Amino acid sequence: MRTRPLKVALLGCGVVGSEVARIMTTHADDLAARIGAPVELAGVAVRRPDKVREGIPAELITTDATALVKRGDIDVIVEVIGGVEPARTLITTAFEHGASVVSANKALLAQDGANLYAAAQEHGQDLYYEAAVAGAIPLIRPLRESLAGDKINRVMGIVNGTTNFILDKMDTSGAGYSEALDEATALGYAEADPTADVEGFDAAAKAAILAGIAFHTRVRLDDVYREGMTEVTAADFASAKRMGCTIKLLAICERAADGESVTARVHPAMIPLSHPLASVREAYNAVFVEADAAGQLMFYGPGAGGAPTASAVLGDLVAVCRNKLNEANGPGESAYTQLPVSPMGDVVTRYHISLDVADKPGVLAQVATVFAEHGVSIDTVRQQGRQDGFGEASLVVVTHRAPDAALSGTVEALRKLDTVRGVASIMRVEGE
Amino acid sequence: MRTRPLKVALLGCGVVGSEVARIMTTHADDLAARIGAPVELAGVAVRRPDKVREGIPAELITTDATALVKRGDIDVIVEVIGGVEPARTLITTAFEHGASVVSANKALLAQDGANLYAAAQEHGQDLYYEAAVAGAIPLIRPLRESLAGDKINRVMGIVNGTTNFILDKMDTSGAGYSEALDEATALGYAEADPTADVEGFDAAAKAAILAGIAFHTRVRLDDVYREGMTEVTAADFASAKRMGCTIKLLAICERAADGESVTARVHPAMIPLSHPLASVREAYNAVFVEADAAGQLMFYGPGAGGAPTASAVLGDLVAVCRNKLNEANGPGESAYTQLPVSPMGDVVTRYHISLDVADKPGVLAQVATVFAEHGVSIDTVRQQGRQDGFGEASLVVVTHRAPDAALSGTVEALRKLDTVRGVASIMRVEGE
Repeated sequence: MRTRPLKVALLGCGVVGSEVARIMTTHADDLAARIGAPVELAGVAVRRPDKVREGIPAELITTDATALVKRGDIDVIVEVIGGVEPARTLITTAFEHGASVVSANKALLAQDGANLYAAAQEHGQDLYYEAAVAGAIPLIRPLRESLAGDKINRVMGIVNGTTNFILDKMDTSGAGYSEALDEATALGYAEADPTADVEGFDAAAKAAILAGIAFHTRVRLDDVYREGMTEVTAADFASAKRMGCTIKLLAICERAADGESVTARVHPAMIPLSHPLASVREAYNAVFVEADAAGQLMFYGPGAGGAPTASAVLGDLVAVCRNKLNEANGPGESAYTQLPVSPMGDVVTRYHISLDVADKPGVLAQVATVFAEHGVSIDTVRQQGRQDGFGEASLVVVTHRAPDAALSGTVEALRKLDTVRGVASIMRVEGE
Repeated sequence: MRTRPLKVALLGCGVVGSEVARIMTTHADDLAARIGAPVELAGVAVRRPDKVREGIPAELITTDATALVKRGDIDVIVEVIGGVEPARTLITTAFEHGASVVSANKALLAQDGANLYAAAQEHGQDLYYEAAVAGAIPLIRPLRESLAGDKINRVMGIVNGTTNFILDKMDTSGAGYSEALDEATALGYAEADPTADVEGFDAAAKAAILAGIAFHTRVRLDDVYREGMTEVTAADFASAKRMGCTIKLLAICERAADGESVTARVHPAMIPLSHPLASVREAYNAVFVEADAAGQLMFYGPGAGGAPTASAVLGDLVAVCRNKLNEANGPGESAYTQLPVSPMGDVVTRYHISLDVADKPGVLAQVATVFAEHGVSIDTVRQQGRQDGFGEASLVVVTHRAPDAALSGTVEALRKLDTVRGVASIMRVEGE
């Protein structure tokens, strides 16, 4: 075995970074055996140098991340600071100075992955980012490598643990959104400002990364349709149950039926209880992949947390270090299909629509006419009097598969009907 | 892109081989883009040259596999003939003649993996075998690479689709073993001679491969404890249901509590219905992995079949071809821990034991004494009169965790008690 160690520098030393440093120290012998050379923690860039960091020698700590990536003796940079800047500049500077990069930065990769790949390739360095999507679950590598000989048609997953925890809580306890969010916050599953999670931004970044890899094309965050889950109600769960479904916030990446385009979207959806994703509980993540030859695969595990994310980072670190020793490179960007990303209106799926309507004869006929005029075929209708003395009833319509644009048009027209007092909820139905 | 194609030869052209050939032809452009060079099917060794093989030019067919691997112009050999010989000789000859190898041969790898790895390394070639375990499910690569920076403590899975189909059928329909086997045979899930599947040989080979990779040591087929599932009865399923469990044939690879040894075993076991493996239905496979940092992961998908297995082969083919182009090698054998494999007697788990006993006072005390004398602590006992007029009762004992050797000693002593008419079943309880 080579005795000169490979030098690794950490950018960021929060929950994930400190766990990476800890495992690098406690499992040094294992890592050395697996890589074929020892690895040495050669520097740690942090914002708050005075914080006590157990197990990390003080002389390794610096606040000057730029100087660290420019040092020139670093073999691998592990970037766990997150956000677009300064991470982007630091990563490209690292490539320029001869370091490969392991990143957990979904926001940056979703926004600017192509340029990062180009910079890595220009300087003969690796860019690995297993930890950016679904924490410890091996997903990027299976998609990039294990399924490299197959044709992936759909990737559908629960890629945000916070929202899954909240929805699971609503499902099992009957709680409303706010109450479930409070519990998630109290237990540390939700941040003080939960916007990135509950509005689907986090999941959308992951959807962009997954769609790009799965379909060998470029998909950016802006290409991903996004709806949060803050408006999911206990009534929606009750409706889902009547259909033998539950509700999950899903990231869905699909190849169009004609194969000429792809779509990527994040929104709450009803899925049948018999679907493997329906039984993913608490803050777990799971991603369901459908490929031509492989059929249906699912990958399941913890989607976040310091240790699980560190596991993904270290798996990448071993691979990148091995590549360094072999003077080889791992797979770069694969975007050769150049498939365009279609807008949400082109997505074809099923819908569950709850309407508050006047409780009088002829309403169903009126509503059905509007669906027919927009080319949306109805699967089932359930009509029930509200019996609250206001002369109102509710009408629940489940459609056959239809383009999202046709459904939007239908809903717009329904709102204009005198007999429709309100559209209580619209939810897509997936996984059938 | 390089225009000179990489030459691939197939050894075997059955269900998997013909599907590999088909995808290589129909997806040639995709494969070329992902590899960085075109791949060409340069030869196909078969036993029956006269069989019609759609899409494969007749001039590629040969019955002389040895001449094919010795040709010297082949870059990658895909071995899908199975069995130990002649596969072993053909693979080592291929390495000697400058070809890397993609194999789906679990029996050979479980028996002789170390020598194959050594031969590959000696000649600077790659040995990949994702398809050898759990069909299309990316499992070997995640274990070898994604979790390379983590410490795996347990791998527990359903790795044989035939037996899972049979057990699932018994569970859902109440059928007995023979009836469920007949249905599996009729539907093509079981072979005419199902021995390799139902006696656990197939799963044991996979357990050996998984244990070796997970614990970075050498585990051979002979090291794996093996019990088939032919003696599982409808009564066992009824008992399992009373405990909130189902029964699965599991391959279980564990690191001992002291970290100084490993175990690998295949046997039927009760697992709680709440465990993710409990809901794996029909012929699907799933593997549950527990690691220090990553936590609990699960990989799920079709475990067999021509197309799924071909997907795994082609993923490896892309990787091996890329390595060829880059003049690099993928990971070789990692057996640096040299952890010994302990015998089954050292395995610590829980047990569910059904006894037929005389229906008279004092029997429970006698039985409990035997457990205590062997150091096996009882969790629960359920006693019920058989009410069949023969003065017999049944006693169901569920133990706390105990070494397998202690349990065997207990059962041997129980059989000698006059009041114990018979040991109806012994089943391990896992996944709690």
